[in-house]
Amino acid sequence: MADGKTGVWLIGARGGVATTVAVGLAALRRGDAPAYGLVTETAALAGVDLPAWDQIVLGGHEVRGGTLVESARELEKGRVIPVGAAERYADELAAVDASIRPGVLVRSGRAIETFADAEHVAACATPREAVQKVATDLRAFRAAHDLKRVVMVLVASTEPPVDEASLPTEIEALDALLDDPLSDSPLGDDAARCPLRASSLYALGAVEAGAALVNFTPSRGANCQAIEKIFFRAGLPHCGADGKTGETLLKSTLAPMFAARHLHVDSWVGHNLLGNRDGAVLADLDHKKAKVQSKEQLLASLLGEAPQSHVSIESIDSLGDWKTAWDHVHFRGFLGVPMTLQFTWQGCDSALAAPLVIDLVRLMDLALRRQEKGAIGALAAFFKSPLGAAPRGFVEETQTLIEWATR
Amino acid sequence: MADGKTGVWLIGARGGVATTVAVGLAALRRGDAPAYGLVTETAALAGVDLPAWDQIVLGGHEVRGGTLVESARELEKGRVIPVGAAERYADELAAVDASIRPGVLVRSGRAIETFADAEHVAACATPREAVQKVATDLRAFRAAHDLKRVVMVLVASTEPPVDEASLPTEIEALDALLDDPLSDSPLGDDAARCPLRASSLYALGAVEAGAALVNFTPSRGANCQAIEKIFFRAGLPHCGADGKTGETLLKSTLAPMFAARHLHVDSWVGHNLLGNRDGAVLADLDHKKAKVQSKEQLLASLLGEAPQSHVSIESIDSLGDWKTAWDHVHFRGFLGVPMTLQFTWQGCDSALAAPLVIDLVRLMDLALRRQEKGAIGALAAFFKSPLGAAPRGFVEETQTLIEWATR
Amino acid sequence: MADGKTGVWLIGARGGVATTVAVGLAALRRGDAPAYGLVTETAALAGVDLPAWDQIVLGGHEVRGGTLVESARELEKGRVIPVGAAERYADELAAVDASIRPGVLVRSGRAIETFADAEHVAACATPREAVQKVATDLRAFRAAHDLKRVVMVLVASTEPPVDEASLPTEIEALDALLDDPLSDSPLGDDAARCPLRASSLYALGAVEAGAALVNFTPSRGANCQAIEKIFFRAGLPHCGADGKTGETLLKSTLAPMFAARHLHVDSWVGHNLLGNRDGAVLADLDHKKAKVQSKEQLLASLLGEAPQSHVSIESIDSLGDWKTAWDHVHFRGFLGVPMTLQFTWQGCDSALAAPLVIDLVRLMDLALRRQEKGAIGALAAFFKSPLGAAPRGFVEETQTLIEWATR
Amino acid sequence: MADGKTGVWLIGARGGVATTVAVGLAALRRGDAPAYGLVTETAALAGVDLPAWDQIVLGGHEVRGGTLVESARELEKGRVIPVGAAERYADELAAVDASIRPGVLVRSGRAIETFADAEHVAACATPREAVQKVATDLRAFRAAHDLKRVVMVLVASTEPPVDEASLPTEIEALDALLDDPLSDSPLGDDAARCPLRASSLYALGAVEAGAALVNFTPSRGANCQAIEKIFFRAGLPHCGADGKTGETLLKSTLAPMFAARHLHVDSWVGHNLLGNRDGAVLADLDHKKAKVQSKEQLLASLLGEAPQSHVSIESIDSLGDWKTAWDHVHFRGFLGVPMTLQFTWQGCDSALAAPLVIDLVRLMDLALRRQEKGAIGALAAFFKSPLGAAPRGFVEETQTLIEWATR
Repeated sequence: MADGKTGVWLIGARGGVATTVAVGLAALRRGDAPAYGLVTETAALAGVDLPAWDQIVLGGHEVRGGTLVESARELEKGRVIPVGAAERYADELAAVDASIRPGVLVRSGRAIETFADAEHVAACATPREAVQKVATDLRAFRAAHDLKRVVMVLVASTEPPVDEASLPTEIEALDALLDDPLSDSPLGDDAARCPLRASSLYALGAVEAGAALVNFTPSRGANCQAIEKIFFRAGLPHCGADGKTGETLLKSTLAPMFAARHLHVDSWVGHNLLGNRDGAVLADLDHKKAKVQSKEQLLASLLGEAPQSHVSIESIDSLGDWKTAWDHVHFRGFLGVPMTLQFTWQGCDSALAAPLVIDLVRLMDLALRRQEKGAIGALAAFFKSPLGAAPRGFVEETQTLIEWATR
Repeated sequence: MADGKTGVWLIGARGGVATTVAVGLAALRRGDAPAYGLVTETAALAGVDLPAWDQIVLGGHEVRGGTLVESARELEKGRVIPVGAAERYADELAAVDASIRPGVLVRSGRAIETFADAEHVAACATPREAVQKVATDLRAFRAAHDLKRVVMVLVASTEPPVDEASLPTEIEALDALLDDPLSDSPLGDDAARCPLRASSLYALGAVEAGAALVNFTPSRGANCQAIEKIFFRAGLPHCGADGKTGETLLKSTLAPMFAARHLHVDSWVGHNLLGNRDGAVLADLDHKKAKVQSKEQLLASLLGEAPQSHVSIESIDSLGDWKTAWDHVHFRGFLGVPMTLQFTWQGCDSALAAPLVIDLVRLMDLALRRQEKGAIGALAAFFKSPLGAAPRGFVEETQTLIEWATR
Repeated sequence: MADGKTGVWLIGARGGVATTVAVGLAALRRGDAPAYGLVTETAALAGVDLPAWDQIVLGGHEVRGGTLVESARELEKGRVIPVGAAERYADELAAVDASIRPGVLVRSGRAIETFADAEHVAACATPREAVQKVATDLRAFRAAHDLKRVVMVLVASTEPPVDEASLPTEIEALDALLDDPLSDSPLGDDAARCPLRASSLYALGAVEAGAALVNFTPSRGANCQAIEKIFFRAGLPHCGADGKTGETLLKSTLAPMFAARHLHVDSWVGHNLLGNRDGAVLADLDHKKAKVQSKEQLLASLLGEAPQSHVSIESIDSLGDWKTAWDHVHFRGFLGVPMTLQFTWQGCDSALAAPLVIDLVRLMDLALRRQEKGAIGALAAFFKSPLGAAPRGFVEETQTLIEWATR
Repeated sequence: MADGKTGVWLIGARGGVATTVAVGLAALRRGDAPAYGLVTETAALAGVDLPAWDQIVLGGHEVRGGTLVESARELEKGRVIPVGAAERYADELAAVDASIRPGVLVRSGRAIETFADAEHVAACATPREAVQKVATDLRAFRAAHDLKRVVMVLVASTEPPVDEASLPTEIEALDALLDDPLSDSPLGDDAARCPLRASSLYALGAVEAGAALVNFTPSRGANCQAIEKIFFRAGLPHCGADGKTGETLLKSTLAPMFAARHLHVDSWVGHNLLGNRDGAVLADLDHKKAKVQSKEQLLASLLGEAPQSHVSIESIDSLGDWKTAWDHVHFRGFLGVPMTLQFTWQGCDSALAAPLVIDLVRLMDLALRRQEKGAIGALAAFFKSPLGAAPRGFVEETQTLIEWATR
């Protein structure tokens, strides 16, 4: 039974997604808003025992300054949350603010470092120290709110890509890296010596403090093989990676149609325009590479054969949080005749991500109660690069989710 | 086992779809073309025992003059079939032409009558006479080619809509209508007295001659309750209605995504531009109504709640066989924030329909060998308004199809 | 010299366009907003002597109740005006409200009557009485604010189309109609007896009170030949009809490109989705016909030859004031090869119209000072169906405007 | 008077554009095709004295092998020219083939070198030798066909960009570079030592042989200041650069509309997909840079202020000669409200370019007869980066063209 309270520890706790989560939970608690966007509120999952809105408590790490109310005002202007919401939920937002602690920055890349505010960054001499700092904050959060279960959610900006081959596969190898001294400044870039980034250390901090983990970002540091083994050994569940909110959601919905009809996709080009902090971080070529990789893997497996494909992400300031994706699919039908499908998706990224974060928290709470451990592949429907699951179409992933949740 | 030969009797045998079927089968037999567009050639249906390309023999009814080679040349110019195909397959097309017989026109509407050529229309005094004429032609076709099984496929232009409540539900009531004298001219419109149209009479002719029936058109006359009972009583299978080739295929693929993610669709507007004979027939307001009805029912059942919806079909001459559909979906996500998905589909209608007709023939052949009778709901994936099945998403319909075919 | 004050009398004074005009003028006076959307603020018109923001005074007729602040709040929610504007400019809006008088309803059609509020409709026994009522209100407005010049602007909802052949061409014929008794209820529909609608009577009221007239609506009643003669005789200028804000603006911009390059347009299809009060009025088939006519005339003259064309307007509630237009242009180039241009325009109708209304007021003020009389064809760039000018491309119309204004 | 014959010397004489020019002229001579796409056949230029179709003789340089008929068959498959054209005009194409000579390759970049066929590349020890070789071929062409005037047209693939600052501004400086030995292989890349590329040498060869020059490509080597001086000194006209066929044509048509209406463009993003040899050459990053530069300059001058802008070109094989451009324009109207215009252009590049090449040849013939010299700015409407003219809107450029041609 979803008894007691469940804590949610957001990494990037004053970012667009986290702020929308905070505003949204306040609105849901007061009955102000429909449950649109929440998968756990569909009829298919109606009978599942999940934490109620008032059983969920928010906190987290953040490397930027400011307050949640300020973040909310920014979102209000950008039409991400309703007009008047920042003021209406000011008390609830202030309460969450009180549970936000300085974050760690370890090889997080220039773009993120630009946003960071030194006094909101915890200085750590070694990776191990950073892990301990994270775990200590989590334990204090648990104690302060008398939480039964805690779920950490990564919703920070995308880190630069890491060479996945260089990430440790064994627990011992990972452990050996943790005492490697970090450069004087936590903003330093000494990735050549050690592949661990902040995302890895947050994940380790979660295990250390007995929390489940949701990696909603494309940052792969949180999901190396050694970390999967550590979660499994600790009997804790984790899931990820990279929330499936827009263009990839459409790809995983449409590609099965082409496959089922034997329509041969020659090329699939996707152009994404985006203007928020995420866009600015992705404009940095290194960070973009991580995101684009995550977006390109899917088609080959769904279509049987890889089409010529191209994915671009451009940072366009004027669009703010509103992602516009244009996809052009060129395919051949009977006797080879070429045809075209184009779509334009105009979605609000934070408004699409926030309810999925709430869904994942509720479902990971269920996994914790069921004592499931390691990667939870049944949550693949939520991710671009699902852990513990082969890539499949979105409908099939949803069927698996429903079976898992309702069993 | 798919032994012997299977006959395909096409109603509208020199139309765009039928001509593409004839060209396509010739190309497949010669190994000239990939099997794109054919569902029965996907890996998922690989093990199913289905007729080979050279086991399929074509014939049919047609109310227009001309030859199949002429129709093929027109399609070649319209980029529906490859350049040079009309010449390359001239012999095969001539062979099919030899099995095409004059059709019947019974309350088929002004637009179709305009295309018809009096010397290709069989004069019948009563509906019963028309049924007998159809059955006689089918039996002759079966005998001439030593066919083991015959499948009739309706691919004629859309008839004007019929008041479905006026169609007979009982076999006896239907039988009583068959001796009602037709007006002198087979082109007359006396629908007020009797609701039966040509599509009903073709369906009855199929049963009479022991053939299965595929209704690929939106003409509902072929699928009233009395006819379903007649097929069931005769131990014959039938399926339909209205091949799902373009915009509706996308709707049945995309709507489940909105539902699964709890994204609330406020409005779904679809505009279809089309320029071939089908377009011209649909430009006639009466015929269009039948088609639009068929397209509008789906969303409410897939989305749980009916959005404001609008479907238009415009006949735009310059587009020929190339359907362009623009859909605009306005939906609300978390906290009610409105977002938009638009798509443009540029597909070649006959090239999309023809392989599905071949698929349906092969699968109805399977149904005949399995002695299935009445409406085959497992074929719902192929239709806009499936008989014997509730509306579901396209992926689920495809799963059912695969289970049925491979069981 | 633009000395003294200029009055603007808005017909439909609490509608979306009028409210946006009122909010916008307040914002411009306070220096809160850039001059985006205002043609009279482009560099090309920099030297022209036009009324300053604080020389313009608003008032008008309205048949609905409520206050301008309430209308502004509605627009705020619909993202037509900035968040907070209703409150910030509440005093300015209240001042305008004080100059709004009940309107007249004469054969305005069912859709408009539905919105009207009996206590805001002036009862009149004859058309002449309605004209006098309008003129009296205008004279009172002029006196109350010590106005040097007055411009009436029609921004009410579109009336049902009137048979233009039935409208009077001579002043005497028009005059004879003015004593025809109106049916008891001002909402009655006795158009068969007399073709004059409210738009005609407002126009006559303007002349009577010595005001210039801008017809920003497609309602043709305001622009019959007899009325043109009356304005000319009275030495007063008028202009119209039907503000060119969206799809037609694009047509008049793009069609000259096809013509200049000798690209042969086979078909031009435009679908317009719209959700505000305008949308609801247009959903009424009669009103739509007036609008569509206004949109279809242009292409033939710009392209030399009329393409197959189709224009639809659908009322889609969820879109509010946001018009979405999708246009599909099918054209042939060298050797007849067919190509396609599609565009999607997502514009906010009131926000596009309001600055043009302000431009037109300033330019008509110039025309009044220059003592120009009759239709001012030099303002054609602002209208879908320009009075006193043959249809031309938008750039050429703009060149004419600049020459006229700066001469 | 356009007496005698005019020779057209195409650089890239078997490429898509040149082949379409050859097929098109043959079709026009036989009266097979409408004059669609030809600006010189619009009513506005009806009275201008221009060479007739049978007064135009084709020849050129080419570095690839094959025949024009083979190129035409490829275009036929790609739906660039009508079905059957390669066969129908085989004799005319063979006649042109007889006037095609091996080309020169000087620092043309890897992508072009990949296509080149050694036996179709003229070996030259120095740039001067290459210039002489080109001039000799031109003189022979003129003599063989008894030509009154000759126009060279560059329609070869785009060269890698050259540092424009390094190109000579004075005739003497250019001359000094011509004896710089070329590396042994004509395919060598020694651009560091000398900035001249093949395009420069073709231009010099044209002057040397008394021909006019049209640079339809973005290769800037043909248009440095020294070359402009040489044309002027020789009393010969030239024009360019980079034919305006698709997305830029639309930009130069639409941007003036935003400017005229004072709509503030925040961002203008354009994505171009293209699959022919041009696409493949542009996929090479260096070549693409040259093209994108040419596309980006325009907006700032037309809009007054530069929006955030992004232009990409992707090579998508399956699209062949069919360019698909998607543009997303984000702009602000009254009170700063953001709105969007998107367009999708699906055009056939060679079919758009070929008639403009014919137009330019006819108009340069006029310039030769009028003894105009140096850059002909009046032809700006044809180019993305017009020589001798400031960037303006397309309608204004067209007005200038008409004035110039009809004066």
